[in-house]
Amino acid sequence: MAPPSAIEVLPETDTSTFTIPDRLIIRHIAKRRAASGKLIAGVAAAADVRAFKGRTHHIHKPLAKRWDRRLTDEAKSRGGSSLKEAAKFLKQPGLISLGGGLPSSEYFPIEEMSFKVPNLKSTSGEGHAVLSVGKHDMAHGTSDYDLATALQYGQGHGSAQLLRFLVEHTELVHNPPYSDWSCTMTVGSTSAFDMAIRMFGKPGDWILSEEYTFPAMVETAAPMGARGGKKPVLLYTVPTGQNPTGSTQSLQRRKEIYAVAQKHDLYILEDEPYYFLQMQPYTGPNAADVPALASHEEFLLSLVPSYLSLDVDGRVMRMDSFSKVIAPGTRVGWITASEQICKRYSVHADLSTQSPSGVSQMMLFKILEEQWGHGGFLDWLLHIRMEYTARRNVTLDACEQFLPKDVVSWKAPKAGMFQWLRVEWEKHPDYSRKTLVEIEDELFHANMRHGTLLMKGSWFCPDKEVDTGKMFFRATYAAAPLDQIREAVRRFGESLREAFGLVALADGGA
Amino acid sequence: MAPPSAIEVLPETDTSTFTIPDRLIIRHIAKRRAASGKLIAGVAAAADVRAFKGRTHHIHKPLAKRWDRRLTDEAKSRGGSSLKEAAKFLKQPGLISLGGGLPSSEYFPIEEMSFKVPNLKSTSGEGHAVLSVGKHDMAHGTSDYDLATALQYGQGHGSAQLLRFLVEHTELVHNPPYSDWSCTMTVGSTSAFDMAIRMFGKPGDWILSEEYTFPAMVETAAPMGARGGKKPVLLYTVPTGQNPTGSTQSLQRRKEIYAVAQKHDLYILEDEPYYFLQMQPYTGPNAADVPALASHEEFLLSLVPSYLSLDVDGRVMRMDSFSKVIAPGTRVGWITASEQICKRYSVHADLSTQSPSGVSQMMLFKILEEQWGHGGFLDWLLHIRMEYTARRNVTLDACEQFLPKDVVSWKAPKAGMFQWLRVEWEKHPDYSRKTLVEIEDELFHANMRHGTLLMKGSWFCPDKEVDTGKMFFRATYAAAPLDQIREAVRRFGESLREAFGLVALADGGA
Repeated sequence: MAPPSAIEVLPETDTSTFTIPDRLIIRHIAKRRAASGKLIAGVAAAADVRAFKGRTHHIHKPLAKRWDRRLTDEAKSRGGSSLKEAAKFLKQPGLISLGGGLPSSEYFPIEEMSFKVPNLKSTSGEGHAVLSVGKHDMAHGTSDYDLATALQYGQGHGSAQLLRFLVEHTELVHNPPYSDWSCTMTVGSTSAFDMAIRMFGKPGDWILSEEYTFPAMVETAAPMGARGGKKPVLLYTVPTGQNPTGSTQSLQRRKEIYAVAQKHDLYILEDEPYYFLQMQPYTGPNAADVPALASHEEFLLSLVPSYLSLDVDGRVMRMDSFSKVIAPGTRVGWITASEQICKRYSVHADLSTQSPSGVSQMMLFKILEEQWGHGGFLDWLLHIRMEYTARRNVTLDACEQFLPKDVVSWKAPKAGMFQWLRVEWEKHPDYSRKTLVEIEDELFHANMRHGTLLMKGSWFCPDKEVDTGKMFFRATYAAAPLDQIREAVRRFGESLREAFGLVALADGGA
Repeated sequence: MAPPSAIEVLPETDTSTFTIPDRLIIRHIAKRRAASGKLIAGVAAAADVRAFKGRTHHIHKPLAKRWDRRLTDEAKSRGGSSLKEAAKFLKQPGLISLGGGLPSSEYFPIEEMSFKVPNLKSTSGEGHAVLSVGKHDMAHGTSDYDLATALQYGQGHGSAQLLRFLVEHTELVHNPPYSDWSCTMTVGSTSAFDMAIRMFGKPGDWILSEEYTFPAMVETAAPMGARGGKKPVLLYTVPTGQNPTGSTQSLQRRKEIYAVAQKHDLYILEDEPYYFLQMQPYTGPNAADVPALASHEEFLLSLVPSYLSLDVDGRVMRMDSFSKVIAPGTRVGWITASEQICKRYSVHADLSTQSPSGVSQMMLFKILEEQWGHGGFLDWLLHIRMEYTARRNVTLDACEQFLPKDVVSWKAPKAGMFQWLRVEWEKHPDYSRKTLVEIEDELFHANMRHGTLLMKGSWFCPDKEVDTGKMFFRATYAAAPLDQIREAVRRFGESLREAFGLVALADGGA
């Protein structure tokens, strides 16, 4: 399969003449919650994900396909934790349990925790709020979640309290087109991918990926014996703001790839850390910016549809992450897939990672559920969108100004944090004498001498034996201050001009 | 191998005439730190564990054995994350990095965090302290760790800041007798065991365990194809306050088992969640309590030595956990093993679980490192020790008072949270007509009718096909209030008397 081209056109939606679909309206979530009653979920409570989903029984949605034949023996034979099963007996009134080996919360030496966060809940959206949680807030009726619960053992799927928010958010954004979809938390997408390979990757199986891809995924899968087979069974893809190319697959491209997956019965691992780093269109160095999106609904409609939203078969495991939109250190993410796959996943988690950190879950619950709500979270994502737009624009403006277009070319990324830069190494003075890898290494070190670090494109080749014949460098605009991004790109231009024997730029400009 | 007997005698130490070994003196840790200079560990910094260990080069300690032949292909072929390797280039002064894809901490929507904990640092030991952390405390010079670092991506071994404390604590308590020991953090011991089986468990390998053991471990290992082979390669043991039997192996027993492991070249997985739940001796229902331990040194000397402390070969992976002494919801633990094994572990973690939650690590750092220190942590463990002693004593007193000794027997646990109760099912009226499993199930449900839940012993048999011929129930005294523990034991006695056709107790007493 060819790699997606770097940039494709997204469908444009004119919301002024558009009836907003029901599913995009946030206040409907609150109605649903009110109808289903107060969430009561004590220590290590099993979550009923179906109860968190919208009532869509008036719309026909098919059931997901079963994946028994594809699951590894390990995944199929996992029966889960028998002691957690014993918890079902605890509902008897008046029972005194000497059963579960859970420590008493009186021995948790944390009485209270608080988190100072931007206040997005109020209509003003100004200032900060301090969110506090005590040990027994549930017993006191002041919250649905407390430290006695969050700091105790939990379930593989994570706490019902946070999972409800994630299920609702997933339905709001993706509305999967089959009926028995579900969500379960992960300890991050790297772990989710590792788990997915243990579930689906039989030794010798082949995994399809983009031509350049996130090397950690290859390094995770290869030692388990995946790859090297004849016919692929899994497709691993980062459809939005891909790492390293920055490319975003168009809806049309996604539909075509999904059809290929259906034809060859591929299971799709959709890894989407950058989904909400979709940015405003790039207008060029001297043009006016495109106006910001005006409403939550407009924002949701502007997002390129996910594979999950096209998944009529239940053949997608979507991996979502808080790493790029809240913080990587939470080590909390979630997957969305069919109930069968989510169940296999959470049963496995019960016996390996257990649940994500309760401290992290509590922090996310306080921010997302109790402070921001669904609308506030979208506001935060809109804020991040505009910040990344500004960062990308500075990068592209600097590329226009400082890079020698004779030997380097690029496209404007629509999403993510990466600028992929193609270097025409065929024009390098040593082209006839040295290999691509040698010249790439020389350029890497030449950049370092000029005081700028960019990643080598070859680090992202999933198969080191395949010669793409093309040379790339990856620049990220995620972290450096804007003036330093500009300076780093200027240094890269200088480094390239020197290496390729081009005329230097006049001081400070193109 | 026979299971350890439930109770064995620990060596007694008279500290009044004893010179306290150097390694037990906490203030020496502070001296060492002062000598090695301020810890500077920024975002995703690699930790130098050797620098955290005491200078023992005046004492000869052998190097650990190598385990290459025992490691699975998966473990041997893990090369780690190539992008994390690129971090080594970042040290160049003046460099602007557009390399690593780390989000800027300005997009972490948490400005400050605080934790209210018991104040054990002051000499008064009274009241609570509120521990706060901001985003840039390291830049401000107010702490060695801050939110910009803890909430960012990290290393598989966890943060250097918390790892230093864990290494020092491990040396203080265990002082491993080989030179190249190391520590690396885990996302909890369940995950550590899962990782260990991936590292050491080739399909068909046999794992030795106690006759009754923690079922989650069997449920974790069996789907990976472990067990069923001829000669065991791994020994999995919970030497202290074992789950479910409550037994604690004596030093003599540990030495014997270690010698067997040496003879047959077994690798030992030492799982020690209950190590610091070693309690005061039980003196009986009407006897005076044994006086509390008077000093940190006396406390450390009172602890039964670990396998790690006997491990001259480096054949032990010890798994430590905060679940029973701080809180399970942290999902932070650590292993201690040879550098080779720790390296394999952390490289694997980089590509699966990544680091433990930074939010949890920060909470533990603030409590252990900045508030309590090593002495304060030992004070907390002494507090827990006395609490569990009281819980166990109430349980044993209730057993003495309420249980029919004709049909049930027990021993006083020296550690842990479990009371193991042997039922002489041979005296049951249906003994000739029903199986052990049937009578056990009847008794379980009879207990439930009497309003008390105890776990079936058969749930803890690692091999369901082995008939031990013995019937047990497990009671935990970890969580229920003391009066309810007493009442639950009374109900269990009532249930047994009814089932075995014994005379009921006179109202309320033996």
